[in-house]
Amino acid sequence: MSERISRRKLFGLGAAGVAAAGAGVIALRAGEEEHAPTAAHVAAAGGAVPFYGEHQAGIITPAQDRLHFVSFDVITDKKAELDELMQEWTAAAARMTQGKEAGTFGAVGGLPEAPPDDTGEALGLPASGLTLTVGFGASLFDDRFGLASRRPAALAPLPKFPGDALLPEISGGDICVQACAHDPQVAVHAVRNLARIGFGRVSVRWSQLGFGRTSSTSRAQATPRNLMGFKDGTNNLKLEDEALLAEQLWVAPGDGQDWMTGGSYLVTRKIRMMVETWDRAPLDEQQQIFGRDKGEGAPLGRKAEFDPLDFAAKDATGQPLIKADAHVRLAHPSNNGNAHLLRRGYNYVDGSDGLGRLDAGLFFMAYQRDPRRQFVPVQLSLARNDALNEYIKHVSSGLFACPGGVRDAGDYWGRALLT
Amino acid sequence: MSERISRRKLFGLGAAGVAAAGAGVIALRAGEEEHAPTAAHVAAAGGAVPFYGEHQAGIITPAQDRLHFVSFDVITDKKAELDELMQEWTAAAARMTQGKEAGTFGAVGGLPEAPPDDTGEALGLPASGLTLTVGFGASLFDDRFGLASRRPAALAPLPKFPGDALLPEISGGDICVQACAHDPQVAVHAVRNLARIGFGRVSVRWSQLGFGRTSSTSRAQATPRNLMGFKDGTNNLKLEDEALLAEQLWVAPGDGQDWMTGGSYLVTRKIRMMVETWDRAPLDEQQQIFGRDKGEGAPLGRKAEFDPLDFAAKDATGQPLIKADAHVRLAHPSNNGNAHLLRRGYNYVDGSDGLGRLDAGLFFMAYQRDPRRQFVPVQLSLARNDALNEYIKHVSSGLFACPGGVRDAGDYWGRALLT
Ligand code: HEM
Ligand code: HEM
Repeated sequence: MSERISRRKLFGLGAAGVAAAGAGVIALRAGEEEHAPTAAHVAAAGGAVPFYGEHQAGIITPAQDRLHFVSFDVITDKKAELDELMQEWTAAAARMTQGKEAGTFGAVGGLPEAPPDDTGEALGLPASGLTLTVGFGASLFDDRFGLASRRPAALAPLPKFPGDALLPEISGGDICVQACAHDPQVAVHAVRNLARIGFGRVSVRWSQLGFGRTSSTSRAQATPRNLMGFKDGTNNLKLEDEALLAEQLWVAPGDGQDWMTGGSYLVTRKIRMMVETWDRAPLDEQQQIFGRDKGEGAPLGRKAEFDPLDFAAKDATGQPLIKADAHVRLAHPSNNGNAHLLRRGYNYVDGSDGLGRLDAGLFFMAYQRDPRRQFVPVQLSLARNDALNEYIKHVSSGLFACPGGVRDAGDYWGRALLT
Repeated sequence: MSERISRRKLFGLGAAGVAAAGAGVIALRAGEEEHAPTAAHVAAAGGAVPFYGEHQAGIITPAQDRLHFVSFDVITDKKAELDELMQEWTAAAARMTQGKEAGTFGAVGGLPEAPPDDTGEALGLPASGLTLTVGFGASLFDDRFGLASRRPAALAPLPKFPGDALLPEISGGDICVQACAHDPQVAVHAVRNLARIGFGRVSVRWSQLGFGRTSSTSRAQATPRNLMGFKDGTNNLKLEDEALLAEQLWVAPGDGQDWMTGGSYLVTRKIRMMVETWDRAPLDEQQQIFGRDKGEGAPLGRKAEFDPLDFAAKDATGQPLIKADAHVRLAHPSNNGNAHLLRRGYNYVDGSDGLGRLDAGLFFMAYQRDPRRQFVPVQLSLARNDALNEYIKHVSSGLFACPGGVRDAGDYWGRALLT
């Protein structure tokens, strides 16, 4: 799908077709001139990411700049309704990721006496790199739908980590959808239309907006900065690391449940930063906490961002340059049985906290082949010892099994699980 | 300031200068290669908006795509400290809007044992069209600073409107700053650094992020869509309407307090939308509520977005095409003693509300010469009769006197008021 085909134009064409077919649709203005899109929209265009494939898009897809993440509770107890919803959602997702409306009549189409089958706020905006990635939480595998035997062992609840201050109302959930795009309006539109389609069958449990992706997932991307001002994503699994992805990211046949083959496990952690305290910490201390310098992002004692970490290097007094409690030392694969993560987090600011402080931090997301061998040990070592802990607080947590990709128009999200 | 000059490069230069002057700054890597910025950053570049001028930037500046709005309480009771803060803020604002760091050492500069004088998360990002616009709330004119006699009559508290469901903790405030930019990270960085600089003198009362500007303020901009899916900002005051701006937007000499000459009054209203209910309303009803069609944004009965509204037009049964309770009829200048507004609002999504619904809506902002003759009558007529009221709820309110522009480097925010 070319990035020049906007929703508006598709709507015009699609709807004209419907009108020609004699259906009772409203008058259309397909031929009229479109105003020039704003700079940001042009900028954000970025074309459409293919929806069908072996893996779901939105995992190794080069991280887009904006996020709307949503977690749903399933409120129907009928498995057939859940199955039907997944089919409807998949059809809508396939359309929206290609820059089309959620429904087939076009955003404001359908019968005038019926609600439109698209909410309309993304009309005229391009696909903007939208990806929609679905995942299933452990709670979906309870008795309600007879899925208990299909639950992967890797979807075991995360342990309670030292310092956790989790709020249940913004944690967990039966089904998650990660919407990433270059334009927040496009990501919000997608989530909102999935919620609309799900009416009566799912209800929004929590949702989170994010901006300024805090990880690179490709070597072609510059490393962005998190709200502590540091480059984030330097030592990340990247789409170019093919052998490592096979080893560390994708679930392989024989890993456990077959329906997860080609999929990956997503851990989400909303991590509040005490930005006001951080902003009064000396530069030296900030750099020692991460083990990297703030300007360049280089390992302490090295010059360039991508210079390798040297945990043995010492300063003149014989102290390690990268301290024992530095974040990158504790999180590094060499300290965690060679566990890698594909981090894909976003900055968030949720206004202020009523105590005179910004409510800001990192919405951490990481994909992996098995959280029991990856996220859990890394986070245990961080939660116990990370010097950063003085400035952060984990307030929400989620773990979701994201199946392999939708293969074609006959396939749908969760088919292998539900049938 | 050219859009090619990034913070990173300025930092390199500026800091090198400081280093040459022999100050104890940290090692710098000015000469190193910078990674290519991400597509969205390039896209969002948009150059720098001039900071000095007769009026503050951020009012008729073509609306940027992202907002971080903050309201502060002043916590010092010393007028001299407030005055000093305004000088420090102005210097930082003049720098940040030109794509530089908040402080003079560069983002990670200063003494290693001191906190950096910039928080660093916008390092490497261009100015991105950042504007910072300051305003003073009525509460600043109480007895604390001896400013009671300088309070403009136009800053009278807004009346309570029918249906208001205002939360005091996210309403009002002594000083507001509106940060608009094409990149949210740049807007957030600016607000966060002002809060950092203000430590001990001001405290964040509330703050709000927004995206997808819901108004055009220039005829060169396409009209964006709000979260009800309708084009918003068609009939807005625009920077090209010079005569109307003089009549309706800018405070003129003789209007009241001299310190407000060249300024404007800002009303903010956070308006929650019941999106789930809205999404189940028929298209016909949605269109009748606004009095415009959803696809094109044309007045009902007309063809094109900018066709004039014809309130006398009737349908075949003799009913007005634009109903008596339609939003555009009630809000139109002809219904409100020729009152115009310069609307400059943003969409917001603040996650979900814990009741299964998205917490989403419009952060309405409007500038005007005198709210007593403009916002108040318009909102009274809307609050009483607008068919839209079934789907919205006003949850926060603010009114701020935004003075004229900072003239040059010797001037500062509020100087005419405070001295
Ligand atoms: C607010 C919380 C956090 C912040 C601000 C933060 C920030 C950073 C920064 C600045 C780096 C260095 C640059 C890079 O290589 O990406 C880094 C590395 C890393 N972080 Fe975090 N991080 C946070 C939480 C976490 C959590 C919860 C985990 C996983 C449990 C994690 C895992 C990692 C890993 C695996 C690395 C790479 C280490 C290496 O191999 O060099 N981080 N983080
Ligand atoms: C969630 C709340 C609101 C929504 C969704 C909304 C939406 C709209 C839309 C779609 C239009 C037509 C397009 C245009 O000319 O811009 C419009 C026009 C307008 N609105 Fe609103 N609006 C809201 C609240 C308000 C409020 C609180 C005020 C002021 C008190 C206001 C004042 C106006 C004015 C003055 C016009 C132009 C009318 C004309 O001259 O044609 N709106 N609004």
